[in-house]
Amino acid sequence: MSERIWHGGDLGEARALFPHAPAPWIDLSTGINPIAYPLPALPASAFTRLPEPAEHAALEEAAARVYGGADPALVVAAPGTQVLISLLPFVVPARDVAREVAIVGPTYGEHARAWAAAGADVRMVAGLEEAERADVIVVVNPNNPDGRLLSRAALRSVAAGCATRGGLLVIDEAFADLDDAESLAADPPEGAIVLRSFGKTWGLAGIRLGFALARGTLAERLRAALGPWSVSGPALAIGRAALSDAAWLAQTRRARAGDAARLDRLLAPHADGDVRGTTLFRTIRTDAAPDLFRRLGEAGIWVRRFQDDPRRLRFGLPGGEGEWERLGVVLR
Amino acid sequence: MSERIWHGGDLGEARALFPHAPAPWIDLSTGINPIAYPLPALPASAFTRLPEPAEHAALEEAAARVYGGADPALVVAAPGTQVLISLLPFVVPARDVAREVAIVGPTYGEHARAWAAAGADVRMVAGLEEAERADVIVVVNPNNPDGRLLSRAALRSVAAGCATRGGLLVIDEAFADLDDAESLAADPPEGAIVLRSFGKTWGLAGIRLGFALARGTLAERLRAALGPWSVSGPALAIGRAALSDAAWLAQTRRARAGDAARLDRLLAPHADGDVRGTTLFRTIRTDAAPDLFRRLGEAGIWVRRFQDDPRRLRFGLPGGEGEWERLGVVLR
Repeated sequence: MSERIWHGGDLGEARALFPHAPAPWIDLSTGINPIAYPLPALPASAFTRLPEPAEHAALEEAAARVYGGADPALVVAAPGTQVLISLLPFVVPARDVAREVAIVGPTYGEHARAWAAAGADVRMVAGLEEAERADVIVVVNPNNPDGRLLSRAALRSVAAGCATRGGLLVIDEAFADLDDAESLAADPPEGAIVLRSFGKTWGLAGIRLGFALARGTLAERLRAALGPWSVSGPALAIGRAALSDAAWLAQTRRARAGDAARLDRLLAPHADGDVRGTTLFRTIRTDAAPDLFRRLGEAGIWVRRFQDDPRRLRFGLPGGEGEWERLGVVLR
Repeated sequence: MSERIWHGGDLGEARALFPHAPAPWIDLSTGINPIAYPLPALPASAFTRLPEPAEHAALEEAAARVYGGADPALVVAAPGTQVLISLLPFVVPARDVAREVAIVGPTYGEHARAWAAAGADVRMVAGLEEAERADVIVVVNPNNPDGRLLSRAALRSVAAGCATRGGLLVIDEAFADLDDAESLAADPPEGAIVLRSFGKTWGLAGIRLGFALARGTLAERLRAALGPWSVSGPALAIGRAALSDAAWLAQTRRARAGDAARLDRLLAPHADGDVRGTTLFRTIRTDAAPDLFRRLGEAGIWVRRFQDDPRRLRFGLPGGEGEWERLGVVLR
């Protein structure tokens, strides 16, 4: 379909690039919390039976509570945020095929790929002010990989403009669970859609679970495009338990913030300028990035490099003292 | 979005309608094999990590082998066949919004709902010959709920016409695993898309797994609309193990055919005319259907009734001697 985008998490690629690296690999290439929510016992029926509509609704209600008390009617559960990103170009009410899409970047690559594959005219812009009157404007907030945070007020203003002219502001809050100062999930404005990811914060990316929050026909069109039973039985059971566990989330917020600060102390000596990012990943820029990527790889540590900026490296959080030690050996 | 369609599998509805029924409920309202594929042990990484591209490809290869040696490049894995049905109206190359869709029915209700929700002009037709030159023609083969089987030759001819005029023949083979005499999955023709379900035959509807097989740009557009990581880690691990177990499938084919014959012997005295269906469900028509539905419900047995034909009832296969006995008490 299109050029392959580099993503984190593909250890097959790591093993191919560094066949002599010591096992086990330490995967710091994603922004996924390494301390996962403890898996609850799953009844066999979660695997064998079609999920019941009431379970799906209960999951959306639990998500609405975590997202600051949003109206559950505005919440659309999906098998991962990625499918929502990939679907959007197909379900946004049709205008011209070559609609104009402005993406505030650099950012997560799948937004641009999805819109370009649908025939849109995609341009990357450095800030909201350059997005002007594009039909669709995409922001990731806080941004991946640099943590740049746009204000609620600015986003509300852009959304209002979109609502007036029939455009759409896509606000991808994939990393907002632990960094929610500017989240609009609790009250998504007209003209905007907010995307929230489950797998990153709860450390369960494999179950595929994500949410859209939007008003009016867009949420209905997404529901129609996904159809019934879009979320698996295991994801419904795990997601509902995890999203209802406020104590775990509060403890995770404190613990991962501590980890992020500890990682910054290791990374700062290698960075030209500040270490940036969110609680779940930290990003540096340095001329030595290709060399550092190679030294980490040879030590069995897989971090995220970037096609559009070879000077940048992104680090997820280590998942225990053994991982911190192996990382420290390379970075010290 | 639209009127609610009745589906099997919603025991919440059963409990609401028959609050005094004995527990546990026997759910015969679906066409899901009650003897599920034994769940393999799942590593924690299936839940915690993003699925790797190589695992997704290996799953599609295993499916291609089961579907008669199809080219794996034509296979698109998805989180359930339903999402493929729901997506199709959004990804079929755009022509008029009010395109003409002919559905050979009565059949599974979600096809009509999906196309109608997208603004298509949907008409139900009694046979392929009435579908004429519709932009999109939908058949379920073998059909749900009556088991009607269309021949490969007839379907190939219709697909060829679709290919010539830029139309599409959708062949939903949800129940073809155990009844594959006329399956086109091994070699999907130009102009057609074949849908295969995983959860029914392997008794694991909760994991959400299904496949499309198609040539050319349609498979690419479906891949684009689903994006990467569309199938969960548990579904990848379970699906790959199950689809690679030829001995289990052969044993299941024999055992469920025996169950279907046993069920027919119980149902025949209640049916006006033949008992019809596929190996995984049996359907009768009778003036006594509403009364029989009520008597079964009061005995804690949930079967499938139909909005468009109150004289019809569909029965899934009981899952053990205890269930056969309870069913026998009502039917004898």
